[in-house]
Amino acid sequence: MTQYDTMTPDAIRALIRNGELTGPTAGMAKGYTQANLVILKKEYAYDFLLFCQRNPKSCPLVDVSDIGSYTPNSIASDADIRKDIPRYRIYRDGVFTEEVTDVTDYWEDDMVCFLLGCSFTFETPLLASGIPVRHIEEGCNVPMYKTNIPCEKAGIFEGPMVVSMRPMKHADAIRAVQITSRFPDVHGAPIHIGDPSRIGITDVNTPDFGDAVTIKEDEVPVFWACGVTPQAVAMESKPAIMITHGPGCMFISDLKDDNLSVL
Amino acid sequence: MTQYDTMTPDAIRALIRNGELTGPTAGMAKGYTQANLVILKKEYAYDFLLFCQRNPKSCPLVDVSDIGSYTPNSIASDADIRKDIPRYRIYRDGVFTEEVTDVTDYWEDDMVCFLLGCSFTFETPLLASGIPVRHIEEGCNVPMYKTNIPCEKAGIFEGPMVVSMRPMKHADAIRAVQITSRFPDVHGAPIHIGDPSRIGITDVNTPDFGDAVTIKEDEVPVFWACGVTPQAVAMESKPAIMITHGPGCMFISDLKDDNLSVL
Repeated sequence: MTQYDTMTPDAIRALIRNGELTGPTAGMAKGYTQANLVILKKEYAYDFLLFCQRNPKSCPLVDVSDIGSYTPNSIASDADIRKDIPRYRIYRDGVFTEEVTDVTDYWEDDMVCFLLGCSFTFETPLLASGIPVRHIEEGCNVPMYKTNIPCEKAGIFEGPMVVSMRPMKHADAIRAVQITSRFPDVHGAPIHIGDPSRIGITDVNTPDFGDAVTIKEDEVPVFWACGVTPQAVAMESKPAIMITHGPGCMFISDLKDDNLSVL
Repeated sequence: MTQYDTMTPDAIRALIRNGELTGPTAGMAKGYTQANLVILKKEYAYDFLLFCQRNPKSCPLVDVSDIGSYTPNSIASDADIRKDIPRYRIYRDGVFTEEVTDVTDYWEDDMVCFLLGCSFTFETPLLASGIPVRHIEEGCNVPMYKTNIPCEKAGIFEGPMVVSMRPMKHADAIRAVQITSRFPDVHGAPIHIGDPSRIGITDVNTPDFGDAVTIKEDEVPVFWACGVTPQAVAMESKPAIMITHGPGCMFISDLKDDNLSVL
C-alpha cells in the first residue's frame, strides 16, 4: 500500500496530475499545507480579494495567482492549479453543474486562482497535543453550519459566516484556543464555544455541509470560522463561472504547516 | 495643557478636522490603533490590494474603504479620511508635490483608502515590558532603511522591503520577538536581528527615512518590516495621483491595539 502520508507534495501532485489519485487528500504529505480553491474571472477578483481581506478568519488567503496564471508562485511554483487537484466543481450562475478531475478545458485567460488555508493545518497540532478530533475518529467529513454572523460585505460579495465544529472536553477547548491562536492565517482561534443557538445554529446534529458527529455528554462544541464561507458567499453572488476544489480534495502546497504558525 | 493621550479617538479626530491639531499624533488616544494611509485610484487598487496580501509583514491592512468611499467602516465608521488626519502628502507621477491638512479638494469618485497598521501598536507593549524604545527616548522619528529583501511583486507594484530599526539589549531582543509575535497584523516579529549588512544596509547611522538613533555598545539592532514599504513601492510605480499621510501624522482609529493581538 502506498504511504501517501510520507510522500512529498510534488510527488503527490504528479500522481494527481496523471490521474492516479482522484479522491480526498486528508493525511497526504503530512506537515504540508493543504488549501481550498476558488477560481473566478478578473471582473470578480477585486471584490473577492477585498472580501477575503475584510473577513480574514473565514477567508485566510495563502496565495493568489496573477491574473491569467494557474501557478500559485508563493506556495508551489511548479504546480498547475488546473491539473493538480483530484476533483473540481464547476458552478455556472451559482449552480453546481459538474465535477471533473482537470479544468484545463475550462480555463480562461482572465481567471484568478485564490488558495485559502484549511483547518487540516491546525488539526495536526490539536492531535499532537492529545486532543481527539471527532470527525477523524469517525472517518467522516467535519460538520459545517451556516451561522447568523454576517460577514463584512465587499462589493457584490456578502453573506453569513460558515463554521466548522469539533466537540471536545471543556479543558481541551481551552487548550485548543491556545493552539489555534498560533495560526491566525488558518482560521485562528475559535469564534464560539458552547450553545450553538447563540450563533444561529438550531440543530447541531443537522449540519448544513459535511457530516454530523457524536457529541459526548461531557463535551462542548467548539466552532471555528470555515473556509467554505467564501465559496458559499461567492455562490450566492452567482458569477457566470466559478471553479472550486471538490469536497475534501484539496490543493497540496509546498508550504509547511509550521511556516503558518506565528509562535 | 491638553492631555491628548487620554482623549478618545473621535474627540481627537474632531480637533484635527477643525484644524486645531496639525502635527504628529504619537502618544495621542493611547491604546487605540493608529494607521498609515495610502489613497489610490481604482485602476491601481487591485494590484495594490494584491501587493498587500502578498507582503503582509510590510503591508498589514487594517481597513480598505469601498471604492469612492472616504469612510473606514470597520475601524472608525464616523470618520472622514479626507479631513481627519493632521497632514497629507500629495504625489503626482511619483513625485511629492505638496503637503496639505485636508484633501477634500483632491478627492475623486473612484478613489480607495488603504489603512495600514503601524508600529506604534507594538511599541506600547514593548515599553510596558520595560524595553526602552530609543527613538522615543531621543524624541525623534524611528530610523528606516531600504533593504535588499525584495517584496513579492503584484501587478505594477514591486520593490525592496523598507524596515524600521530599534536598538536594544540582546535579552530584550528575544523578549521583543515574543511580544511582537502576538501582533502579526501589525508587522509581527522582527525580520532581522544583528548585522545590518546582511539585509543590505551599508550604514546603520544613515537611515533612508526618519532619524538616526544611538546604538549603545551592549545593544543589537532589531529590524521590523515597515509600513513605509507600500508607500515607497507605490511611489516607484508613479501613479498619476497618490495621497498619503504626512510623516508621523497618522489616522487615529476606534480600534483598540489589544484587538490586534492574537494572544
